[in-house]
Amino acid sequence: MRAYDRQDLLFQLWEVARLDEVIASEDLDREAVEGILDTADQIATDYFLPVGRQIDEEEPRFVDKRAVLPAPVKPAVDAFVQAGFIAAGFDPAHGGMGLPETVHQAAAFIFAASNVSLAGYGLLTVGAGRLIQSFGTEEQKRRYLAPMVEGRFFGTMCLSEPQAGSSLSDITTRAEPMEDGRYRISGRKMWISGGDHELSENIVHLVLAKIPGGPPGVKGISLFIVPKKREDGSSNDVTLAGLNHKMGYRATTNCALNFGDAGDCVGELLGEPHRGLGYMFQMMNEARIGVGMGATALGQAGYQSSLAYARERPQGRAPGAKDPTTAQVPIVDHADVRRLLLAQKASVEPALALALLCATLVDRERAGDASAAAVLGLLTPIAKSWPSEFCLEANKHAIQVLGGAGYTRDYPVERYYRDNRLNPIHEGTHGIQGLDLLGRKVLIDGGAGLRELSAVIRADIEAAADSELAAPLGQALERLARVTAHLAQAVQSDPERGLANATLYLDCFGHVVMGWMWLRITEAARSVAARDGDSDFLRGKHQAARYFYRRELVRTEHWAEILMDNDQSAFDMAADWF
Amino acid sequence: MRAYDRQDLLFQLWEVARLDEVIASEDLDREAVEGILDTADQIATDYFLPVGRQIDEEEPRFVDKRAVLPAPVKPAVDAFVQAGFIAAGFDPAHGGMGLPETVHQAAAFIFAASNVSLAGYGLLTVGAGRLIQSFGTEEQKRRYLAPMVEGRFFGTMCLSEPQAGSSLSDITTRAEPMEDGRYRISGRKMWISGGDHELSENIVHLVLAKIPGGPPGVKGISLFIVPKKREDGSSNDVTLAGLNHKMGYRATTNCALNFGDAGDCVGELLGEPHRGLGYMFQMMNEARIGVGMGATALGQAGYQSSLAYARERPQGRAPGAKDPTTAQVPIVDHADVRRLLLAQKASVEPALALALLCATLVDRERAGDASAAAVLGLLTPIAKSWPSEFCLEANKHAIQVLGGAGYTRDYPVERYYRDNRLNPIHEGTHGIQGLDLLGRKVLIDGGAGLRELSAVIRADIEAAADSELAAPLGQALERLARVTAHLAQAVQSDPERGLANATLYLDCFGHVVMGWMWLRITEAARSVAARDGDSDFLRGKHQAARYFYRRELVRTEHWAEILMDNDQSAFDMAADWF
Repeated sequence: MRAYDRQDLLFQLWEVARLDEVIASEDLDREAVEGILDTADQIATDYFLPVGRQIDEEEPRFVDKRAVLPAPVKPAVDAFVQAGFIAAGFDPAHGGMGLPETVHQAAAFIFAASNVSLAGYGLLTVGAGRLIQSFGTEEQKRRYLAPMVEGRFFGTMCLSEPQAGSSLSDITTRAEPMEDGRYRISGRKMWISGGDHELSENIVHLVLAKIPGGPPGVKGISLFIVPKKREDGSSNDVTLAGLNHKMGYRATTNCALNFGDAGDCVGELLGEPHRGLGYMFQMMNEARIGVGMGATALGQAGYQSSLAYARERPQGRAPGAKDPTTAQVPIVDHADVRRLLLAQKASVEPALALALLCATLVDRERAGDASAAAVLGLLTPIAKSWPSEFCLEANKHAIQVLGGAGYTRDYPVERYYRDNRLNPIHEGTHGIQGLDLLGRKVLIDGGAGLRELSAVIRADIEAAADSELAAPLGQALERLARVTAHLAQAVQSDPERGLANATLYLDCFGHVVMGWMWLRITEAARSVAARDGDSDFLRGKHQAARYFYRRELVRTEHWAEILMDNDQSAFDMAADWF
Repeated sequence: MRAYDRQDLLFQLWEVARLDEVIASEDLDREAVEGILDTADQIATDYFLPVGRQIDEEEPRFVDKRAVLPAPVKPAVDAFVQAGFIAAGFDPAHGGMGLPETVHQAAAFIFAASNVSLAGYGLLTVGAGRLIQSFGTEEQKRRYLAPMVEGRFFGTMCLSEPQAGSSLSDITTRAEPMEDGRYRISGRKMWISGGDHELSENIVHLVLAKIPGGPPGVKGISLFIVPKKREDGSSNDVTLAGLNHKMGYRATTNCALNFGDAGDCVGELLGEPHRGLGYMFQMMNEARIGVGMGATALGQAGYQSSLAYARERPQGRAPGAKDPTTAQVPIVDHADVRRLLLAQKASVEPALALALLCATLVDRERAGDASAAAVLGLLTPIAKSWPSEFCLEANKHAIQVLGGAGYTRDYPVERYYRDNRLNPIHEGTHGIQGLDLLGRKVLIDGGAGLRELSAVIRADIEAAADSELAAPLGQALERLARVTAHLAQAVQSDPERGLANATLYLDCFGHVVMGWMWLRITEAARSVAARDGDSDFLRGKHQAARYFYRRELVRTEHWAEILMDNDQSAFDMAADWF
């Protein structure tokens, strides 16, 4: 059994995300795209899915200052690399396959659903490599990017330090200029995913550090390329200080790294001095969309697993049909099990729609569409945070469908729940996403991004005027506009109180976006029905949308009330009152 | 550091639960009660709290058909037994200490907060022993109950079978009458907590089984005492077939047991034939309240752990105060961290109030108060389910406060989250609690329980007429009454559709009850302030109540709308549409 619904993925790609429009100008047709996804499916089925339990139970070990991974990790990652799924993320000019981001992300979804922690290495390498692709010198591209594209070198992003997690202005890692133009790096980094392993010939760390004498805070941060090994194969004085023992997501090592303990760690500046944080945000934004996709894939995997169980497991009878001599019914027949399944579907399918929409916006931005960039910027905190919160909730439901069985390692659903719990934390916590959205993104250019997004949503609503979803979505959108205007004002007059409910605003915004996704999905379903006839598959879309609107979208009314009050009940809680 | 807030526990016991009224007639004063809690605190501090990580990482092992537990389990359980915390749960007539249930539960809270999976053995033994105390013959009490009271024998409840989890009418374990009046037991039981271990001299299994020729379904279920070992120490043919590998709650073994594989398992009937399920419900109801207390204790432990971290961990600065040369602030100063902490407090404190209230109702019921029994019956599904759902959510927030650190095993919060995920599953799933509440409890005697409960709540509201909580709680209570009348009608006319939203009704009911608990807590806080003067501790109660009413109680408006529609969007989802 697959960990994802292939029929839904193809429907979402072609009918909802309209991939044909994205790839119209590319040398790629439907058959070629589906061939790529078939390859991803094959590798995921052969190498990712079967080893999930083993590589969770056998955690990475710290042995002689090295990270030692369980045996099945390397063959899986190798198969991923050899099939070109790292090269897929890079420009042909640098040896990449130049795949549209939408296709790349569809493949990423397949891998992440099949094992999210194995998929992490590719994600990080593509993200790091693209930074070098964007800002590196030709020489840096030759020495670092080329082997990353080939999948011989992997990449990391090194931001956090023990005293500076979310607060990057407080990093203290130093980069002292050397006479040859390179830098001597010293400092300690924390929470480095993929920070050590033996899966690749080398690891290219992209490290935030400060050049002495620069401005304080984030304005003094520069970005450095710091390989684990030098070109001659010798050590570059990057030491694995420890491995974190995580609740889940275990096959992606998570490391504490010391740079320059022996005073002999050498790095190269990437781009200009003091512009490191801005550069890193390119990678961060891509990683955030990737995190959202991973959370979505985990939600999907739990949904598929619990749905299969619910269809097969006989237990009990309907209320009022208690005759114990009749056969037990499959649990999917029980109302509350159906709710637990539908709640999952109602979250994971629009989350996939948003992830793929963001990928199409990346493709449009690459093709020079400036409005795509503004909308993408606004949607990025949503694409990261909403699945991290609500597809985690879906994974909670998946366990509940299985009952006691779901609480054991005999089924994967408890692992998905543990894996997914990371997603509201890394690449900017849920709270940080809220601050990014309300404190920055909606304010940029006087609210240009939101105006652009609202126009797009309104156009979809107008095109779907006869849909039962059109009116409630329109109202939700107006409500969001009012709330935004009100809070934007509050943020300007008092940033602390104005941002006190930024997380709730984030969730509220996210629910409206997911309502929009359901409109897009159901409109696509209507088109397909008109073309090919109705089907159970399409009926399910409408029913899930109805459920989402009735049970979830309405929550924005209650949230909007709290936000219009800008309720300070949490903010006014003094630290000593706890 | 303690895993619970002792000041709050004492405040809740004396000021909210009014323990002085409960123990008025007992030979027990405040000093004696607090001495008992001090003993619990000492054992919990010395034996429970320090071993949490070890006994989670070293799971019970299946060795030679025995369950082998990590080394620190036995000393901890021994200390618990030797201090009399099993005897505390039994009548003096049977060698017990006859402690009021309220004091017993307060001690249980301390142990569960300090390690819930170690606390499980005592809970199960008291529950099983009380069944023998209620329904056993003098001979059975002598042979089984007496050593259980002494803590030499432990107990279990054996209900589920591989083909019959929530559907007990489908159990197939057989009990064939023998010539000497005993029964030959054969069958397979699943999910048996404490089903095997070497912590006690013997294990007394209370087993649901069917005597051939009895009526089908639940009416043919009888209850049997089936010891692991016979009086001569020989095996009673109860075989450990396997251990479940659980996400959490690991020091409580969870077993598959085979009874009579060699045809030589002998049991004794407890009470009358065919009345087993009714008897077992005595234990189930106690266990359900115990599960709620465990969930509450885990919520409390996560809250304490994340609060301590938030007060100590410096990170970042307020929005608008970005000067990187100033010191970082403790994260409790950040609005969203304060929300994550206050959301925990707002859930775990009223959950404790409800658990203690239920314990006082047990004490009142024992003292012959019939109305206490009706209210307790109605509150039991709430006391079980609400903390299982919402204190789990609190544990999710605790992880979030710690960020990446919270996702590692270096801190206990990820373990609390894993431990707590069991609670919505065992002793009747969340969905089963909803069916119990809406399909049975609110309908009994034409709604007598709810009338009684409403009268109690209304009396509290009237006594607190000048409280800011009185009016919204009154409205919420009226809303609940309307919803209940509407759904009770729907259940009678169509049980399946009428019960389709039973889980939502359960949550809605639970929120109203928690709103009531906050009224009781804040009224107690006002009394204490009038007597002893105001304090930060008391101010925190009012602020947390405000937060709960503003953010949580209002959700009952939205839920009530769905329930008044009796929305069928999940029920109408056909199995083939997923």
